[in-house]
Amino acid sequence: MQERFTVEYHIVGDENSALEQAKIIRLEQTVEVSDELVPPGLIRDQVIGQIEHFAALNSQLFTATISYAVDTTALELTQLLNVIFGNTSIKAGIRVHRIDLSPTLLRNFGGPRFGIAGLRKQLNVLEKPLLCTALKPMGKTPEQIAELAYLFALGGVDVIKDDHGLTNQSFCQFEQRVTLCAQAVQRANDKTGKNCVYAPHVTAPSTEIKARVTYAKQAGAGALLIAPGLTGFDTMRALAEDEQVNLPLISHPALLGSMVISPHNGLSHRVIFGQLQRVAGADASIYPNYGGRFGFSQAECQSIAQGCQESMGNYPAIFPTPGGGMELARVPELLQFYGDDVMFLIGGSLYSRSPDLVENAQYFLSLVGR
Amino acid sequence: MQERFTVEYHIVGDENSALEQAKIIRLEQTVEVSDELVPPGLIRDQVIGQIEHFAALNSQLFTATISYAVDTTALELTQLLNVIFGNTSIKAGIRVHRIDLSPTLLRNFGGPRFGIAGLRKQLNVLEKPLLCTALKPMGKTPEQIAELAYLFALGGVDVIKDDHGLTNQSFCQFEQRVTLCAQAVQRANDKTGKNCVYAPHVTAPSTEIKARVTYAKQAGAGALLIAPGLTGFDTMRALAEDEQVNLPLISHPALLGSMVISPHNGLSHRVIFGQLQRVAGADASIYPNYGGRFGFSQAECQSIAQGCQESMGNYPAIFPTPGGGMELARVPELLQFYGDDVMFLIGGSLYSRSPDLVENAQYFLSLVGR
Repeated sequence: MQERFTVEYHIVGDENSALEQAKIIRLEQTVEVSDELVPPGLIRDQVIGQIEHFAALNSQLFTATISYAVDTTALELTQLLNVIFGNTSIKAGIRVHRIDLSPTLLRNFGGPRFGIAGLRKQLNVLEKPLLCTALKPMGKTPEQIAELAYLFALGGVDVIKDDHGLTNQSFCQFEQRVTLCAQAVQRANDKTGKNCVYAPHVTAPSTEIKARVTYAKQAGAGALLIAPGLTGFDTMRALAEDEQVNLPLISHPALLGSMVISPHNGLSHRVIFGQLQRVAGADASIYPNYGGRFGFSQAECQSIAQGCQESMGNYPAIFPTPGGGMELARVPELLQFYGDDVMFLIGGSLYSRSPDLVENAQYFLSLVGR
Repeated sequence: MQERFTVEYHIVGDENSALEQAKIIRLEQTVEVSDELVPPGLIRDQVIGQIEHFAALNSQLFTATISYAVDTTALELTQLLNVIFGNTSIKAGIRVHRIDLSPTLLRNFGGPRFGIAGLRKQLNVLEKPLLCTALKPMGKTPEQIAELAYLFALGGVDVIKDDHGLTNQSFCQFEQRVTLCAQAVQRANDKTGKNCVYAPHVTAPSTEIKARVTYAKQAGAGALLIAPGLTGFDTMRALAEDEQVNLPLISHPALLGSMVISPHNGLSHRVIFGQLQRVAGADASIYPNYGGRFGFSQAECQSIAQGCQESMGNYPAIFPTPGGGMELARVPELLQFYGDDVMFLIGGSLYSRSPDLVENAQYFLSLVGR
């Protein structure tokens, strides 16, 4: 039980109360008994968390880095999340700021199968940002959705995903939509010579997701869209590690907002939209960019991009995929902010610029020098 | 597409901005395009959300009830969560206060298989509160854990659950622990004539949970503990609806704290620990009681108890299961607060009162008149 990994928590309070909270987290996240009930020996020496570092960030905010034995996680992603924050999530004023997994954990979870390099290779776009868009709105028929997919692929959109609200509604059933969209994108690729991919949304009941993924694969989907906040992170991990799936995973933030939105509670943007996405095998992580319809700050978006790309064992870097109401006019600014290794998710603005969706997509590509 | 269900959101802001947010939620949760891009006809008339009620709670907090077409959910729990709060979860100052599902949705999800009446029948405890405890701490061997289970069952604890940190650690493997604990509780029941049950923790990777549940069932587990915040709510739903499982489900709040802890973001205590638990088939919902180690208020706990027990289609009421550092001395107060239809989860205090765990459990039962 020697190997340990660490979690950095930010704790609100004065120094004494924050340190007291850190001491409690050690126990709450492992043995869940008070200090006097912790047996001596292995449990006290290794099972409980250990405070490795404690310091002030300001007079009312402290950082505590706590290490846990890898063995407490049982090498399960569900239990890893449990050790990181299970019970402590219920306490106000404590936030998971970052995680630092150990070699055994990083080897245990396969991580992103494609990453930036793999996805670029599949799309045959070896430099400059990628462009992603969403097929919408909900309420259109599969034929109408597929027609949009065709036009966007003709215009050169790299990843054409279902809107995340499309699953298997009676008015737009999964199998019909996926078949038609995959065919439409293939038809466009045949004309353009490009490798645009269609990414159907496979978030589904736990009992049905495997069948949807299998169907999507055989129908010709080139990637998959999934929302781990709806399915659980481990469901995405299982898809990423499944040899038979072997498709890039685009992760959608649905419902995950509730875990990051309050600055001193929950988990940080870096952890939720960066680090955990990679542990769970996403190749691209969608989140709302600063200055769009949602309220993330520049610093939060920067931390997400870092979480997607900073060194993390042998995991490849993945695409930060900012979306959430970005205007085409902002592309130059965002290029400067994110650099070239980014996938821009542009929905509404790619529909509304002009009625010619092909030209809209081409215009976007010209903005990033493609 | 006639049938609709409703979600009540609480929105921070002045009246104009809150109403504007409500109008945006209608779109964000369905078509995800701006109003001018919503096509006329079916999509505008039925697919987008409709504001059914809007009113002030105070000058800076408003309530908006929005209805959605049942068809937008595809009758999937994952997609229901998506429609309720997928993207809007990423906005600060908007909270899901309660949900009101429609008949079709309530019939579609099986709900709690046992509920209060069913669990009472199984345990043969037809009145007065139930007692639940946790086997801990992590780090003990399966033999040591089973010995605790034996003593608690001998003392008459109704539901003896794994601590939620126990899964399949190398030092306390699932199969060995479950076998020994189920046998230990059976041995005690043979002596006492009671029907105490052992509830192993089956939270596991999505690819392994079925095997664990099957093992637990054949080993004699009388209930199951699962943490939907770690597995996703739909995984619990699938267990509840599975005829072959057919065991009461005790739901643990791990990680769900991040979604409720900030008062004006995320989802309410009533929704997360009451209403959604029932939709997803829990028979008992564990949460930290007011005045323990965690910070829930009396009003929040009351709303959870209501969410567990108020009328909801044909779903049975389920046990609110307050825990999180409750002292035995508080039982009289809590009896008054919750009434008889409650399951008290008492961990540390049942271990620390005296070294005689059997007597501690008996003492607890005497406090509730059993």
